[in-house]
Amino acid sequence: MSPVTDDLDALRDRLLRFVSDRDWERFHTPKNLAMALAGEVGELLAELQWLTPEESVTVMAADPDAAARIRSEVADVTNYLVHLAAALDIDLVANAHHKLDEVELRYPPGAQPRA
Amino acid sequence: MSPVTDDLDALRDRLLRFVSDRDWERFHTPKNLAMALAGEVGELLAELQWLTPEESVTVMAADPDAAARIRSEVADVTNYLVHLAAALDIDLVANAHHKLDEVELRYPPGAQPRA
Amino acid sequence: MSPVTDDLDALRDRLLRFVSDRDWERFHTPKNLAMALAGEVGELLAELQWLTPEESVTVMAADPDAAARIRSEVADVTNYLVHLAAALDIDLVANAHHKLDEVELRYPPGAQPRA
Amino acid sequence: MSPVTDDLDALRDRLLRFVSDRDWERFHTPKNLAMALAGEVGELLAELQWLTPEESVTVMAADPDAAARIRSEVADVTNYLVHLAAALDIDLVANAHHKLDEVELRYPPGAQPRA
Repeated sequence: MSPVTDDLDALRDRLLRFVSDRDWERFHTPKNLAMALAGEVGELLAELQWLTPEESVTVMAADPDAAARIRSEVADVTNYLVHLAAALDIDLVANAHHKLDEVELRYPPGAQPRA
Repeated sequence: MSPVTDDLDALRDRLLRFVSDRDWERFHTPKNLAMALAGEVGELLAELQWLTPEESVTVMAADPDAAARIRSEVADVTNYLVHLAAALDIDLVANAHHKLDEVELRYPPGAQPRA
Repeated sequence: MSPVTDDLDALRDRLLRFVSDRDWERFHTPKNLAMALAGEVGELLAELQWLTPEESVTVMAADPDAAARIRSEVADVTNYLVHLAAALDIDLVANAHHKLDEVELRYPPGAQPRA
Repeated sequence: MSPVTDDLDALRDRLLRFVSDRDWERFHTPKNLAMALAGEVGELLAELQWLTPEESVTVMAADPDAAARIRSEVADVTNYLVHLAAALDIDLVANAHHKLDEVELRYPPGAQPRA
């Protein structure tokens, strides 16, 4: 059923159609969508909270049930982020590159430890 | 400086190069990246918490300073999500479509109110 | 079954005994407890995300099922916060008063709008 | 300046007075307070995200600057949780004990591993 495309524009259009088909637009203000995004990130944290950092590196291969739940939570986070960006009229990828331009200047390679 | 591309693969490759140029890979386990993602989502919430839902709809046009901060937080969230998906070996867009396949079946159009 | 006490020390002692009776101490580092706290806050957000601010004011009286879920999520948040404070050796109430001392100086009454 | 008391009721009363002295009540709906709580939990996560679980156990003694920031974030989380509970008319400690009654029944000692 999944369309064979990997671009974000198609995902965004599918999400917006999903919402309008159900007449849910009135719920989807940026404020509410940011809360929903945070709620899904909370569920993602719950999947990783009792794992050691090392276990979190191998969980996708080592535990198929946990991997399926993690993929599902990552999907929910992605969908709300794409939806929120549409509601705020932000081009998600261009906006991320723009921030990276700044971050790369602020942290030159080899300059300092992560902190 | 921003590459003229809108695809996620290029963003992911840039992020991974940024991290390896600084020798930060050891920090970037899925567990730690999920925490960083949640931290950035928290900062995004802080930008929207005192706005009414209606104000959140118009803030990008009405308040340029707030709009710049919101764009910056959305960028941080995007970058950590792309990084986390790479660390978990998840194809972000295909994974999101796959979940939408399920969600569309669970919530048929017109069936029930949002809850 | 609930002890007739309203003090936090008794709640903390009950939580720590609950954990040691199950031999779960090794999971309960501050890092992991902070993730668990964030996960529960995410579930609390999910209960409020589609309500208007005005509906959130009246939900406890207007919707007994939602009220029960909200109480349950607030309890989970409380328990992880009390547990985290114990793990960090922080006196929760004294520490909160100390911060309020600073906040009261930073925001004198009548000085500025919330922002 | 801190009152010599360790009880939550006094902390809640101080918070509510702080808010009413500044005429901020209109901002403090449960929905908005839950967002503010989540924002502060995000800042707390940011303090712990690059530490190993083991480092998070010793950070309060080993790094006084980090310890001060962590105490400050825990205070912000505490204050918003106390404020939110007041807005929802929830007795924080009694409510937490009530949930523990259920959790203790659900997870008998020695029965199963944490998961």
